[in-house]
Amino acid sequence: MRTNGRGPRDLRNVVLEPGVSKHAEGSCLARFGDTHVLCTASVDEKVPPHVYGTGAGWVTAEYGMLPRSTHERMAREAARGKQGGRTLEIQRLIGRALRAAVDLRALGTRTVTLDCDVIQADGGTRTAAITGGYVALALALRGLQQRKTLSRNPLARSVAAVSVGLVEGEVCVDLDYGEDSTAEVDMNVVATGDGALVEVQGTAEGKPFPRSDLDRMVDAALEAIGRLKERQEQALRG
Amino acid sequence: MRTNGRGPRDLRNVVLEPGVSKHAEGSCLARFGDTHVLCTASVDEKVPPHVYGTGAGWVTAEYGMLPRSTHERMAREAARGKQGGRTLEIQRLIGRALRAAVDLRALGTRTVTLDCDVIQADGGTRTAAITGGYVALALALRGLQQRKTLSRNPLARSVAAVSVGLVEGEVCVDLDYGEDSTAEVDMNVVATGDGALVEVQGTAEGKPFPRSDLDRMVDAALEAIGRLKERQEQALRG
Amino acid sequence: MRTNGRGPRDLRNVVLEPGVSKHAEGSCLARFGDTHVLCTASVDEKVPPHVYGTGAGWVTAEYGMLPRSTHERMAREAARGKQGGRTLEIQRLIGRALRAAVDLRALGTRTVTLDCDVIQADGGTRTAAITGGYVALALALRGLQQRKTLSRNPLARSVAAVSVGLVEGEVCVDLDYGEDSTAEVDMNVVATGDGALVEVQGTAEGKPFPRSDLDRMVDAALEAIGRLKERQEQALRG
Amino acid sequence: MRTNGRGPRDLRNVVLEPGVSKHAEGSCLARFGDTHVLCTASVDEKVPPHVYGTGAGWVTAEYGMLPRSTHERMAREAARGKQGGRTLEIQRLIGRALRAAVDLRALGTRTVTLDCDVIQADGGTRTAAITGGYVALALALRGLQQRKTLSRNPLARSVAAVSVGLVEGEVCVDLDYGEDSTAEVDMNVVATGDGALVEVQGTAEGKPFPRSDLDRMVDAALEAIGRLKERQEQALRG
Amino acid sequence: MRTNGRGPRDLRNVVLEPGVSKHAEGSCLARFGDTHVLCTASVDEKVPPHVYGTGAGWVTAEYGMLPRSTHERMAREAARGKQGGRTLEIQRLIGRALRAAVDLRALGTRTVTLDCDVIQADGGTRTAAITGGYVALALALRGLQQRKTLSRNPLARSVAAVSVGLVEGEVCVDLDYGEDSTAEVDMNVVATGDGALVEVQGTAEGKPFPRSDLDRMVDAALEAIGRLKERQEQALRG
Amino acid sequence: MRTNGRGPRDLRNVVLEPGVSKHAEGSCLARFGDTHVLCTASVDEKVPPHVYGTGAGWVTAEYGMLPRSTHERMAREAARGKQGGRTLEIQRLIGRALRAAVDLRALGTRTVTLDCDVIQADGGTRTAAITGGYVALALALRGLQQRKTLSRNPLARSVAAVSVGLVEGEVCVDLDYGEDSTAEVDMNVVATGDGALVEVQGTAEGKPFPRSDLDRMVDAALEAIGRLKERQEQALRG
Repeated sequence: MRTNGRGPRDLRNVVLEPGVSKHAEGSCLARFGDTHVLCTASVDEKVPPHVYGTGAGWVTAEYGMLPRSTHERMAREAARGKQGGRTLEIQRLIGRALRAAVDLRALGTRTVTLDCDVIQADGGTRTAAITGGYVALALALRGLQQRKTLSRNPLARSVAAVSVGLVEGEVCVDLDYGEDSTAEVDMNVVATGDGALVEVQGTAEGKPFPRSDLDRMVDAALEAIGRLKERQEQALRG
Repeated sequence: MRTNGRGPRDLRNVVLEPGVSKHAEGSCLARFGDTHVLCTASVDEKVPPHVYGTGAGWVTAEYGMLPRSTHERMAREAARGKQGGRTLEIQRLIGRALRAAVDLRALGTRTVTLDCDVIQADGGTRTAAITGGYVALALALRGLQQRKTLSRNPLARSVAAVSVGLVEGEVCVDLDYGEDSTAEVDMNVVATGDGALVEVQGTAEGKPFPRSDLDRMVDAALEAIGRLKERQEQALRG
Repeated sequence: MRTNGRGPRDLRNVVLEPGVSKHAEGSCLARFGDTHVLCTASVDEKVPPHVYGTGAGWVTAEYGMLPRSTHERMAREAARGKQGGRTLEIQRLIGRALRAAVDLRALGTRTVTLDCDVIQADGGTRTAAITGGYVALALALRGLQQRKTLSRNPLARSVAAVSVGLVEGEVCVDLDYGEDSTAEVDMNVVATGDGALVEVQGTAEGKPFPRSDLDRMVDAALEAIGRLKERQEQALRG
Repeated sequence: MRTNGRGPRDLRNVVLEPGVSKHAEGSCLARFGDTHVLCTASVDEKVPPHVYGTGAGWVTAEYGMLPRSTHERMAREAARGKQGGRTLEIQRLIGRALRAAVDLRALGTRTVTLDCDVIQADGGTRTAAITGGYVALALALRGLQQRKTLSRNPLARSVAAVSVGLVEGEVCVDLDYGEDSTAEVDMNVVATGDGALVEVQGTAEGKPFPRSDLDRMVDAALEAIGRLKERQEQALRG
Repeated sequence: MRTNGRGPRDLRNVVLEPGVSKHAEGSCLARFGDTHVLCTASVDEKVPPHVYGTGAGWVTAEYGMLPRSTHERMAREAARGKQGGRTLEIQRLIGRALRAAVDLRALGTRTVTLDCDVIQADGGTRTAAITGGYVALALALRGLQQRKTLSRNPLARSVAAVSVGLVEGEVCVDLDYGEDSTAEVDMNVVATGDGALVEVQGTAEGKPFPRSDLDRMVDAALEAIGRLKERQEQALRG
Repeated sequence: MRTNGRGPRDLRNVVLEPGVSKHAEGSCLARFGDTHVLCTASVDEKVPPHVYGTGAGWVTAEYGMLPRSTHERMAREAARGKQGGRTLEIQRLIGRALRAAVDLRALGTRTVTLDCDVIQADGGTRTAAITGGYVALALALRGLQQRKTLSRNPLARSVAAVSVGLVEGEVCVDLDYGEDSTAEVDMNVVATGDGALVEVQGTAEGKPFPRSDLDRMVDAALEAIGRLKERQEQALRG
């Protein structure tokens, strides 16, 4: 039995609160249990060099953790003078995941930057960032349409993400920190609202795992992402 | 007339919400109108080299702004690879201010680090950080007593801070971003709950100002700090 | 038809040349077609702080590309003053993959560092690094046994890696640079010699992909890894 | 009694030597007792981005200490790879102080950079830098007029600075290093030649201080700045 | 007697293998005994700022060592975040040496960058880099002529380099690592194929040395460079 | 004819002013015409890791230029976040040169750091730094003897340096900036007071130069160093 009486396929209490920032073009505070990630979408009427001249736009992401978002205080990356490998890896993942939601040509020559800052961490910060980041992105794009900057919505599909793992031999979704620490396999799945895969990352934490476990974990993740899609729709209806 | 019908000596709506962090030894979300600063206090059973061997403890602070806490998105300091001069100046000020609240010998050989992260900015982030940081610090020290780590409270006095400025010739306290941008003189005052000065920083933004204006601004600030002290006491009673 | 007349499931010409370094405790030049990665294993009689005191050892990796290993010259990371996100992500992957091959307790309190430097790049540098890095690692561990530093071999299993992708709708293994650039899905699979999974990373480059494609790609990758295992054994017999 | 028989309101021996640099457009070696700061003013026919397009000019400052300007050798900031918080704080102060002396519109689209380098330190380096920096700045602006680059002098007023502190309960101006180390309150005041305030920074080193001490310190500082103004005029007459 | 039966004036086994890189415009693997340096020449149709507008081109160099090219593993400069003083000094030397081979006006507004990466080190890496870098450079320039980008060859003269030292009182050329470590004087000489000097750098490792030793070492180096010139011609004929 | 009526073998007006720093264990302001370098020697009772445990001491140097020591203002290295290649090369040279003056075993387990800061530059800053640095070093070592920290003087020999070049075909010593810019060959020679060579660095600025020019330049440099030795002795007698 999991903490809070969750069954293996149950998500934590997921709340996606839209419009929490006074300044950002789009924003969402994503809470997955005690994991809280503030996602803001900022629109800039420029594109980075590698896109310049193609007519397309760009979607990118940055990720950070407040120093005391974790159980033990972590050194501030700004003070250490560089972002660590884990941070860079996560923000590259968030960027790829959210670009999959957008028709970059329809976005026009502008950049949307998703800042995903972890206010409090209890496992699954990257998947909360993707799921909440999608809401912030959708709100920013809606704003561009309402201000007539865009004539049609460049959102091509919804994208959400969830963690899944093998904990004591059982496939569990949306692991909290305690479960994550003891999982034998740790996996993050990003998929569209209708179940197509965007990114799959699975790692054996100790012993290598059989092919059949991969199958069971992907199944569980896709089912959970279907439920996250409903929360996203609800947040965007609000 | 100021926005929201404030008179020149009125504070914005100030809310000091204690205990907002699951992990930190002490925490406070300080809201001064639309300025929101998350303050966490982390206790570490070590001291920095310059204190080592003296028997005393240390209190220090770090400050950061989320990239989209501001009207326009700012570059992330972790990504730029260094903290800017303004950040370093502010976190040095917060550290000095909060050390004035503590008997460092009574603290013992441990360090309390205050992380003050601006979630949303609308002027006065450093004074909100000091005022809320005091609450987080006091809660952390109370916890050390409750866990019998400390036999007596090393808190020597309460400390709070407020901005004050000359706006169109009038002395106003607790400036919001719009007022701050147009103020002729910009000042930050840190003081104890009973009106002794800890730090005074005043800057002419355009024309140099007469001695008499300094006097009027310090008077107004000390009066406002008296009211902030009450909010702090209330938050700590909670 | 692929370049050089390869079928979809055919590897490029793979040569694992052991013992190429005069100085390193273990080494292997891994050539997958025109991709050449020099892998050296260095043994250090110390462990990093997070392992210190546990009695176990550590295996880690660093990755780099010579500036003109690529079609266009890339800026040297040492001159730019930092390793990019892609570099950090790849070297973290190599480290995790090769730790899966080793019983870290049996290694004792020492660290093996795998340096994987790309001399020439034509797609699949990270999978060549893992496959050749395993050979370098095995040789270094064999040396520790021969010098009686270790009484038994801490190698627990063999590990190899291959890329696999969907190119024009067909599942192809071991993509070269040209194929990689046009693949619809790009995947890297790390597995043991007997087909258990160590790491799976798959990314939709454009459109999200169905669950069934994932299955076909993993099948093809595992089959290819079986053949890479034979090359590794051959290199280690030499 | 202070060292060298100084009374509480006496400055140290102050010498402002103009024109000490062969290359700079303006220069001054400011000696306050054993504190020696070399100030050079460099004129550049460009403005920084935040001023670009406004038609105005800019005045900025950089500050540094030679490694052995101090009693114990300090690490060289260039070797450590960054300027410390104290350095950034001081050079921001010098820049603000000297901008108050200039009508930036009358300066035209050019930048004057004041480099203030501490050759030898014995307390009060930042106030010596401002006082000597003013002389270097005035000489550079005079040169622009003499070369007919400027038709009128953009100098709006003179600016000087002094430290003041509470030492054993007594208000003393222009503290040397020994006094500074034992002062209960440490203050820096920047003011114009006719006694208007440009910047006031006061810090309780130990116990918070009463409002009345602030008043006494500001009075003493303003009086001392009147005498520094005379030294500046004398240096500029030379 | 030297290792491998070399006489004092004998070079090690020198092999200059041209055209080793699939991607670079020119390349050469320079082997001086166990010292192996991979030299690639990359042509870029731009010039750096300090040459811009002069009509001339530029030749520059970068130098690096693989972490385990040495007996003990060295920290990777990219990971340490900066190039060390030795690296910068060597790459400046290589750049100056190879610029002496080229008529920069005849090169036109383009830059040739020589990357000299040490695959394995056994003394004399900088002189191997210059000698092999010349071959890579010459091949890249020949390619520009063959593609009719250049109408005439901007190569003005051949350049090669050798180390020379006083080992146990005897003048020896092309020192290996063991000899280098015990040499009393260590010298690097860069010269043209017909014996004119480009750069001379000699350093007493322990005791200062008499003028007459300098003369003997320069003589021996110039003679050895004559033989290296033949190897370069042979590599370029191939 | 050279500026100031100098003949080809004449030094500029050389003044070595000892004891200019209040704090440093040894100091010298070296003026070679308009080139002014402040040299301080700092003694630290520790040695760097590569010397630790050998019983010997160490002598090292750091070099810097004030931003406006040059004709055009240069960016401050501390602000740019790193020391450039030229700076590192020069400070390594100064360190090697001054170590040649000292018996490091007799120095004992302590480090002398020479800081050579260019106050004003007009060519030949590195040779002025070595020549003045020797005086600062000798004074610091004399102080160690006077305080009985050392029983005998670890100074083994005097060391000085001078630049020499081919200007319009003529061998000239101690080049000023204007001469240095037009010299065909630029050379720096470090030697002992009795004419043994410590370091020789010569570079063809344009065309390679014949062996005979090297001989003439070394002759002229050694003669000039003989005269610098006298200035050093005079400064140390003072």
